[in-house]
Amino acid sequence: MADSVKFNDAGLVPVIAQDAEDGTVLMLAWANREALEETAQTGYGTYFSRSRSRLWRKGEESGNRQKIVQILLDCDADAVIYRVEQIGGIACHTGHRSCFYRTWEADSWKENSDVIRSAEEMYGKK
Amino acid sequence: MADSVKFNDAGLVPVIAQDAEDGTVLMLAWANREALEETAQTGYGTYFSRSRSRLWRKGEESGNRQKIVQILLDCDADAVIYRVEQIGGIACHTGHRSCFYRTWEADSWKENSDVIRSAEEMYGKK
Repeated sequence: MADSVKFNDAGLVPVIAQDAEDGTVLMLAWANREALEETAQTGYGTYFSRSRSRLWRKGEESGNRQKIVQILLDCDADAVIYRVEQIGGIACHTGHRSCFYRTWEADSWKENSDVIRSAEEMYGKK
Repeated sequence: MADSVKFNDAGLVPVIAQDAEDGTVLMLAWANREALEETAQTGYGTYFSRSRSRLWRKGEESGNRQKIVQILLDCDADAVIYRVEQIGGIACHTGHRSCFYRTWEADSWKENSDVIRSAEEMYGKK
């Protein structure tokens, strides 16, 4: 599965997580070979956290896991889409449904959606 | 506009091009500061071609330009979405509507859509 994928010099490939039902792009993250293989095998969205330098099973802390519906590969084999059912309806660590909650409007970035659940509630941090 | 964006070490940010009407992810490409600014100013999808090391006005050869509907930024400010009207209905240089024309099915990548127009027709190459 990951044999067909072209990873970058850091061994990573960008992954777009997309809501399989309505097409909303939820986040862009990165995967290494292990993360892709685990995703295909377990059926849950798995990534590589660049900040923590380790495998990241999305939702392992917040509970907001991503059930895989489809995995897509692009023409150059250097970008992947996980089409998912987003458990809990929240993909972003900020508590927004999508990480892409800012829209460019004339001269500034404006929030285009509300926080559904606070980071404190999701992660128990203060 | 690009002042808020965090570019990687190569001065680039990944850009997801998404059909504004039905949410189909059309391609993932890269933009530098100039490409983002030009996109915001002209209203047409502009990227940085890593293979050609130059600004890439999408559709400059094929005619398949991308009219910008919205530009979105993610929580970490290191990924962008262009929501577009895809002129000609084709984003991929292979002639598929979307670059993500392969789906993982059990044990192999299968094509999930047809070529709409051949590369020869689009680019006049043999």
